Amino acid sequence: MLEQLKEEVFQANLDLPKHGLVKYTWGNVSAVDRASRLFVIKPSGVHYDKMKPSDMVVVDFDGNVVEGDLRPSSDTPTHAVLYKHYAEIGGIVHTHSTWATVWAQAGLDVPVMGTTHADTFYGSVPCTRFLTQEEIDTGYEAETGRVIIETFEQRGLDIMAVPGVLLKGHAPFTWGKDAHSAVMNSVVLEEVSKMNLFARELNHFAEELPQRILDKHYLRKHGKDAYYGQK
Amino acid sequence: MLEQLKEEVFQANLDLPKHGLVKYTWGNVSAVDRASRLFVIKPSGVHYDKMKPSDMVVVDFDGNVVEGDLRPSSDTPTHAVLYKHYAEIGGIVHTHSTWATVWAQAGLDVPVMGTTHADTFYGSVPCTRFLTQEEIDTGYEAETGRVIIETFEQRGLDIMAVPGVLLKGHAPFTWGKDAHSAVMNSVVLEEVSKMNLFARELNHFAEELPQRILDKHYLRKHGKDAYYGQK
Amino acid sequence: MLEQLKEEVFQANLDLPKHGLVKYTWGNVSAVDRASRLFVIKPSGVHYDKMKPSDMVVVDFDGNVVEGDLRPSSDTPTHAVLYKHYAEIGGIVHTHSTWATVWAQAGLDVPVMGTTHADTFYGSVPCTRFLTQEEIDTGYEAETGRVIIETFEQRGLDIMAVPGVLLKGHAPFTWGKDAHSAVMNSVVLEEVSKMNLFARELNHFAEELPQRILDKHYLRKHGKDAYYGQK
Amino acid sequence: MLEQLKEEVFQANLDLPKHGLVKYTWGNVSAVDRASRLFVIKPSGVHYDKMKPSDMVVVDFDGNVVEGDLRPSSDTPTHAVLYKHYAEIGGIVHTHSTWATVWAQAGLDVPVMGTTHADTFYGSVPCTRFLTQEEIDTGYEAETGRVIIETFEQRGLDIMAVPGVLLKGHAPFTWGKDAHSAVMNSVVLEEVSKMNLFARELNHFAEELPQRILDKHYLRKHGKDAYYGQK
Repeated sequence: MLEQLKEEVFQANLDLPKHGLVKYTWGNVSAVDRASRLFVIKPSGVHYDKMKPSDMVVVDFDGNVVEGDLRPSSDTPTHAVLYKHYAEIGGIVHTHSTWATVWAQAGLDVPVMGTTHADTFYGSVPCTRFLTQEEIDTGYEAETGRVIIETFEQRGLDIMAVPGVLLKGHAPFTWGKDAHSAVMNSVVLEEVSKMNLFARELNHFAEELPQRILDKHYLRKHGKDAYYGQK
Repeated sequence: MLEQLKEEVFQANLDLPKHGLVKYTWGNVSAVDRASRLFVIKPSGVHYDKMKPSDMVVVDFDGNVVEGDLRPSSDTPTHAVLYKHYAEIGGIVHTHSTWATVWAQAGLDVPVMGTTHADTFYGSVPCTRFLTQEEIDTGYEAETGRVIIETFEQRGLDIMAVPGVLLKGHAPFTWGKDAHSAVMNSVVLEEVSKMNLFARELNHFAEELPQRILDKHYLRKHGKDAYYGQK
Repeated sequence: MLEQLKEEVFQANLDLPKHGLVKYTWGNVSAVDRASRLFVIKPSGVHYDKMKPSDMVVVDFDGNVVEGDLRPSSDTPTHAVLYKHYAEIGGIVHTHSTWATVWAQAGLDVPVMGTTHADTFYGSVPCTRFLTQEEIDTGYEAETGRVIIETFEQRGLDIMAVPGVLLKGHAPFTWGKDAHSAVMNSVVLEEVSKMNLFARELNHFAEELPQRILDKHYLRKHGKDAYYGQK
Repeated sequence: MLEQLKEEVFQANLDLPKHGLVKYTWGNVSAVDRASRLFVIKPSGVHYDKMKPSDMVVVDFDGNVVEGDLRPSSDTPTHAVLYKHYAEIGGIVHTHSTWATVWAQAGLDVPVMGTTHADTFYGSVPCTRFLTQEEIDTGYEAETGRVIIETFEQRGLDIMAVPGVLLKGHAPFTWGKDAHSAVMNSVVLEEVSKMNLFARELNHFAEELPQRILDKHYLRKHGKDAYYGQK
């Protein structure tokens, strides 16, 4: 079942080491089939060079395995909670990519310091709070998804306009309309995490990008008046 | 038309990822044919691994497409304004290369800290101001070219002696006598942006290069008394 | 003798440059055969691209060569001391990997700043003291092993829960149940050394990971209740 | 003439980009034949991927070309001065490698912060002064060699025990018993320049390596009691 989606998810997982976002198996990509309310995700702890499209695991929105011989990623419940809550999300990526993780460990939102950020994220990429002991005991991975939702709701953020988050002390999650765009958003988040850190190191008084330029750059690539690319 | 120039521009675009200056399609190179007052530029948002020389787009100095099935880079009007204003420019490059972008985001000129810089840029690489709301509304990309011209004119800089600029909050543009040298200038700007940042981090009191050594290094590679290379 | 172990040790040594942990021959991996109380280690100063599995040297726990035409790594006595003292250790790695060495040179323990660290190291990775003149004269490499043991005993650390150490002013050693996992622990130590340095640079007040999240991450990958991977 | 030396110098020049020490043609390696008092050096500004062993240029100790169709590196007089003055030097390398150049631009000696440094350099790697206007006018490249000699003589340094120098505001030179070991010393200098910068960034009070450990590490690899490697 969902053979084409498995192929897409498989390829998107291989893109993680190709873009330098993961070492070993420290990352996972999933993508959803909205019609069947099922998603496809990488198996847990399987090396990328031995993985096949048929190793991908099919899971429902409560995190139950529907098809697959292997155990799905241990982060599967986080993916499930996000797919269930946000109908717009088509693909999700989790990595421990270096520079985004640095911001997560610093416990800081990534501010909009330039147009590289503005082309993809319409505002700061938020950093969550730490999970409580109770949340860890209840179900760490599912509660991780709920803390992401809480963060976006408390701040009134549009999940597709800011397609990524930093889990405090942990690492980033990004998402998108499909697996490929979720990976691309991880690449952008990693790069702007690096640039923005060093911009502030170089000039402690470096300004955030003015709202008018954030608007211009985001809107020339997104929405009905976009004019970037071939359509 | 302009088949040889298309090939050159195509190759120069491929050099961007080869030198680590771009991820995905975040960059563009163009080159001009002065006789016909036309330039050739990369199409917008086309992946480098699928791009062919024949995909390059021919554009006039007002930014109108003269030949090509694809839409040209969204930054085309910036290139057009620069070609129209400066008769010496043969090729132009725009990237979001990491370290040059860090300086652009910090809003600072890149000072001459060493001979690597002096070999190519005869002075600091300037950082522009932000565009105003009015300029954004008038035509963001063309006005970007005009802000570059304003920056060079206000400072009395020779466009070919300092073949690059940082757009504040955005990223670098470089140029040269042709597409290949414009790419080379991007490589140099990226490298000195990294070196100069860390030289100041290591020693906050690090001096700029004395004028006499800047003169010596620039002039042994450029101008009538140059003695670097094979001719 | 120990042909399979030689092959494993050979492959693990080749993994060092593959993961960017060594330049030239600046590193060595060994693995032990507990039944015979012998270990296999890389020869000293042999280039990786000329090395063969049969070049691996067999050594006893007192550092005497038992089989092999080449001289073993000059760090062999350090490996011998650790294998003799700790029955749990199956493989040992020594590199001068950049970021872990930075912490060794700074003379600081690597604190637990995030879950990437917590997934592998159950607490800070300790930095030893410098060796004394007397220890250097007695036998530098063997005494290096004894200073590692002293560090773990003084702090009451479990050698397998914190499978790595920084030698002050020198570089890291890591270990594991076999050569492969010792290499993996070197990769993790290198990565968290980089992340943790920049997390503190970005936010001088960045907190260490709360104990509850350290517990959760370490224990979902290690021990009887682990649920990461395929078994 | 000197065909084998040309081959060695050619290979050593190719090693520069392989080890990430140069971009484009920003570097040069030479090696000397003491019997004939001639040295072989890379031609100026020739791309590495088009260069052949027969393109290497033979030069005497006064910098005159003895054989070769191409012009030698513009830095040839610096090499000539060093070969003429120091009978021990067999090969010389000049690069603008990133991290060593950062220290040169910062105008600081690279202190001995760890054993990676001590394994190769028996003390700090010195940074010269800037050249005067008079020296630039007299002959910039030859005077550069004389400023290196001045630096080593004023400080009483052994040229083979500290086989490298930083030219203030410029970049490193290294040397060795032959071209290959000169390149290796450039690799080490680049790596310790990076490590030592970040060790001090991480801990502003990080100590230099105690003399006793510097002695131990340098002398286990160099001199009559060395016991590293296969002989």
